[in-house]
Amino acid sequence: MTTKPKVALIGAGQIGRSWALLFARAGHPVAVQDIDPAQLDGAGNWLTEKGVTVTLTTDLGRALAGAAYVQENTPERLEIKQATFAALAPHLASDAILGSSTSALEPDVLFADAPFRDRALVVHPTNPPHVLPAVELARSQWTTDAALTETRRLMQSIGQDPLVLKRVLPGFVVNRLQAALVNEAMALVAQGVADPDEIDIAVRSALGLRWAFIGPFETMDLNSAGGFELYAQTFGAMFNTLRNDLRARDPEAWSTDTPARIGAARRAILPLDSLPARQAWRDAQVLRLRALKDTQ
Amino acid sequence: MTTKPKVALIGAGQIGRSWALLFARAGHPVAVQDIDPAQLDGAGNWLTEKGVTVTLTTDLGRALAGAAYVQENTPERLEIKQATFAALAPHLASDAILGSSTSALEPDVLFADAPFRDRALVVHPTNPPHVLPAVELARSQWTTDAALTETRRLMQSIGQDPLVLKRVLPGFVVNRLQAALVNEAMALVAQGVADPDEIDIAVRSALGLRWAFIGPFETMDLNSAGGFELYAQTFGAMFNTLRNDLRARDPEAWSTDTPARIGAARRAILPLDSLPARQAWRDAQVLRLRALKDTQ
Repeated sequence: MTTKPKVALIGAGQIGRSWALLFARAGHPVAVQDIDPAQLDGAGNWLTEKGVTVTLTTDLGRALAGAAYVQENTPERLEIKQATFAALAPHLASDAILGSSTSALEPDVLFADAPFRDRALVVHPTNPPHVLPAVELARSQWTTDAALTETRRLMQSIGQDPLVLKRVLPGFVVNRLQAALVNEAMALVAQGVADPDEIDIAVRSALGLRWAFIGPFETMDLNSAGGFELYAQTFGAMFNTLRNDLRARDPEAWSTDTPARIGAARRAILPLDSLPARQAWRDAQVLRLRALKDTQ
Repeated sequence: MTTKPKVALIGAGQIGRSWALLFARAGHPVAVQDIDPAQLDGAGNWLTEKGVTVTLTTDLGRALAGAAYVQENTPERLEIKQATFAALAPHLASDAILGSSTSALEPDVLFADAPFRDRALVVHPTNPPHVLPAVELARSQWTTDAALTETRRLMQSIGQDPLVLKRVLPGFVVNRLQAALVNEAMALVAQGVADPDEIDIAVRSALGLRWAFIGPFETMDLNSAGGFELYAQTFGAMFNTLRNDLRARDPEAWSTDTPARIGAARRAILPLDSLPARQAWRDAQVLRLRALKDTQ
């Protein structure tokens, strides 16, 4: 039996503790560090409930000692993350890799001053990573091929499904795709085309049923006997027409009364005090779906 | 045991035969009509394989005799559908409802000259309806409340999940939402952000895993302890920023070499002769997922 390398999580919030669970379940020794003892207690209780044991510490040096991989999960502010990098640098092993859970900061900016920038990259999880396996890897101009390759392999070894960005745009890939659909959904409500729950039906009883197994390109590839190229010849003009129509009819809805109307529609379906139970149901369903995917 | 009313399908292509399967499995007597005997033969063989028996006929009068609901599935051209309506009108029972499978024609235009326009509406399936349950209902200015309500109930009774449009825009709801995400996916490839399969990972290992169970609004509702309204206060500005960024960086990619590059990437993953097996796998997985949803 191979001994798995130690992993350190910096920041014990929702993301940090979810990462800790994933690494611990995969057999890695895990240390979780946070400057706030209350956060550490919360993480410790949650991880104990989940049946795993990790080291909890406020001490960066103790957390990083012997760690081959470090995942940073501090608040989403450049100055906090840069200060964290400066504080942890003296304790980071010379061959350790550092991944940042940032969802928005550009790696070329984020890691510019880090002395370990050749071994640092963005490793942006989908929240929470112990439920959703996609993880976005984005290197900076300094990240070595070896650091990227090793991180990709590490993510796969703990059951995650990494996607590598060749170029960074705001929102990376997952949040851009989500925003494209969500903003059109908002526009449809704002324009009185359909009520929020009717729009949810269009996703949960149609688009989402295939996208759970195959992404948009494979979906189109399988929808033509000649594959994607023939599909594009047949339907490209339609998608282009819709692209122009969506752009032409796209009222900015977030600063209007549309969110309040959607909120009211949601509360009519699900009272606020039933929300935690529905969240638990959602996560359990996703895990059942992942088991279904794994067995095929 | 209640006897279910007879249903007639006009047009025996992929959509018509899939509707026929759904209605027959739900216990309705079903007649399938097509002007092309070869199409009828194909539909008959496919339906026999699926274990159901229907009446196959080229005769509109025979198909419509005693039918309480008629679903039209002829080619997507206004003049063909209008000619079909004129031909079937003399045979349509005075209280029968007619649904059209059109994905693009506006009900106010489509039904303008139909003598039964008070009992006609768009009933647009997701293809194929026996796999994907979402179905878009769009009334014309003449459609009665009773015809809409009765059709919605009928769709639910055969296991479909109808969504009602209050207003018609090009692409209705399902295809607009799909186009929003697909066009951004195309733009990401065109801009060199990620390879097609990496983009597919973002959907099949993140967004699609939740959208299989809950639509975008419920997803956001459950991602905040305060529900959708608080979510919108927290993340609305981020979505609005991404909306503007997506609009600013949105190269039209369908008429470039991007489709050919995506096609080549797909063929490197799945040879064209393996496509039918993968289609069958896809449909089987979706049906397993629907069974998982039904049992919870």
